[in-house]
Amino acid sequence: MTHSYQPRVDVTEVGMRDGLQSIGRIMPTEAKLRWIDAAYAAGVRCMEVTSFVPPHLLPQLADANLVVDHALHYPDLIVAALVPNVKGAQRALEAGVHRIVAPISVSVAHSLANVKRTPTQMIATFAEIRELIDAQSGARRPQLVAGMSTVFGCTLQGEVPRADIAALVRDALSVGADSLALADTTGQATPRQVGDIVAQVQDIAGDKLRSMHFHDTRGMGLANTVVALQCGIREFDASLAGLGGCPHAPGATGNVCTEDLVFMLESMGYDTGIDLAALLESRAVLAEGLPNEPLYGYLARAGLPLQFTQSRPSNAGEAVCQ
Amino acid sequence: MTHSYQPRVDVTEVGMRDGLQSIGRIMPTEAKLRWIDAAYAAGVRCMEVTSFVPPHLLPQLADANLVVDHALHYPDLIVAALVPNVKGAQRALEAGVHRIVAPISVSVAHSLANVKRTPTQMIATFAEIRELIDAQSGARRPQLVAGMSTVFGCTLQGEVPRADIAALVRDALSVGADSLALADTTGQATPRQVGDIVAQVQDIAGDKLRSMHFHDTRGMGLANTVVALQCGIREFDASLAGLGGCPHAPGATGNVCTEDLVFMLESMGYDTGIDLAALLESRAVLAEGLPNEPLYGYLARAGLPLQFTQSRPSNAGEAVCQ
Repeated sequence: MTHSYQPRVDVTEVGMRDGLQSIGRIMPTEAKLRWIDAAYAAGVRCMEVTSFVPPHLLPQLADANLVVDHALHYPDLIVAALVPNVKGAQRALEAGVHRIVAPISVSVAHSLANVKRTPTQMIATFAEIRELIDAQSGARRPQLVAGMSTVFGCTLQGEVPRADIAALVRDALSVGADSLALADTTGQATPRQVGDIVAQVQDIAGDKLRSMHFHDTRGMGLANTVVALQCGIREFDASLAGLGGCPHAPGATGNVCTEDLVFMLESMGYDTGIDLAALLESRAVLAEGLPNEPLYGYLARAGLPLQFTQSRPSNAGEAVCQ
Repeated sequence: MTHSYQPRVDVTEVGMRDGLQSIGRIMPTEAKLRWIDAAYAAGVRCMEVTSFVPPHLLPQLADANLVVDHALHYPDLIVAALVPNVKGAQRALEAGVHRIVAPISVSVAHSLANVKRTPTQMIATFAEIRELIDAQSGARRPQLVAGMSTVFGCTLQGEVPRADIAALVRDALSVGADSLALADTTGQATPRQVGDIVAQVQDIAGDKLRSMHFHDTRGMGLANTVVALQCGIREFDASLAGLGGCPHAPGATGNVCTEDLVFMLESMGYDTGIDLAALLESRAVLAEGLPNEPLYGYLARAGLPLQFTQSRPSNAGEAVCQ
């Protein structure tokens, strides 16, 4: 670790949404609130805390409003939520989130399975969400992110043509996405492919391509992150303890593990603002709130290297505006 | 996967040496021979099959001669062995290995613990091994590799100064190393560091810096590999099922998992000559030969992606000279 200027990389904790929706157990609301507190105390300043979906479809996230209310108590925390449709967007707006992520899946098969709409229909939905947001007064307008899903392959459809990615990225921009995230929804991304596709999307979207959402199904999450960093990406999603998986896909795993990602970033000289020791301790909230759920992570097993010293993180324990 | 020219990357299976020496259980000789057969059948054409150390120090590898004899039956298999001293080199020469790897640890503390000599004393030993080899007739002269250890950090010493790496690399070349490998002995390497140190050593050693030996203690083995590939490195060590760890270091893990490494390389368009399906099947040999030993690996858990098709590997099932 040097003490010279460290470029910033922002890590969004998505475990409260992507992790919790992908496992069978339901985490009590109170444990979710403790998780948000612990993540905040460790320096995490952006969290995708829930998804506004019908509670009967995802009982794991039926407490969306309570969770968002709690997260909004922190004045410098960016509170994001996933919404699959206009109804969800309406609820997210009413709840007051700062960022709405709407998934636009490039795979037709996955899009139909996930949001019951084709990609083209989802673009129309996205346009409606844009209108809803624009109808708000300025201060209440959340950012609208197009979560481009199955970009790196789809377990239902197989390969996802590059031309389809390009067309849908153009469509998402044309209906008013503030920024784009590329999601390896099924954990199939590989490093060279990440470089190729990020470059392709940057050619179209420029710096509106803002963040990457990797799963670690085949152990390449960190390798893919390195390539995305080299392409200039500075925002990444991750889940504490790699929480996740998929009840319908044995062997699937969750997002890149937040602790491992933060450790890699800090060891590469990036400033995440996150205190690693506090982040590791926050796993206790998961162990308590989800008894017997497998928790992953290399760093938690191996510990920090002896000589590793983290310069005081820029977020942890103090209010910093992003 | 394209069908155009795929650049070659060579993966050396080191599980029979580094994996087996790092666990408490002793694999029966017969199982080791089956492992070599299975790895060969999958297309692996270079294996570090044992270490010539006193049997009372490493009873796990007491059958070094039997294992080497068996491996030498395959005419196109490169048979490598680790040797810590002149006596071991003498035994390796008599056994007829093709490649001798002698560890030169940059950390004084680790060098003393590992080979009971300082790095400087180990350079003198290396020179003696060089003389021994040069005294052989040409056809029987194995390659001599300097296994530069603890290059990326040391659990005993802490940080390893760059100046010490440079000095020892120069020394190793001056006493006749045919090539160099850089080893992340303690699993502390991080991607930016790998790029920096590989570049530094290439400045001194040029293409004599041949291969990388990564452990996966903190999950960065594949990310580090991507960076080394970008630096032009085309040889990597790995252990089937990530076999290894260290009885004295809880949380330590073995080398990068061979299956995961090969999958990443093939998915990036490199030709390893290794058949992934056969490689995955070969894990059964470990499960039988080391009952209850933990076997790692993402690919084994998640399986190959649906659309993944491997063009016929260039080694598997046929004799190919490297």
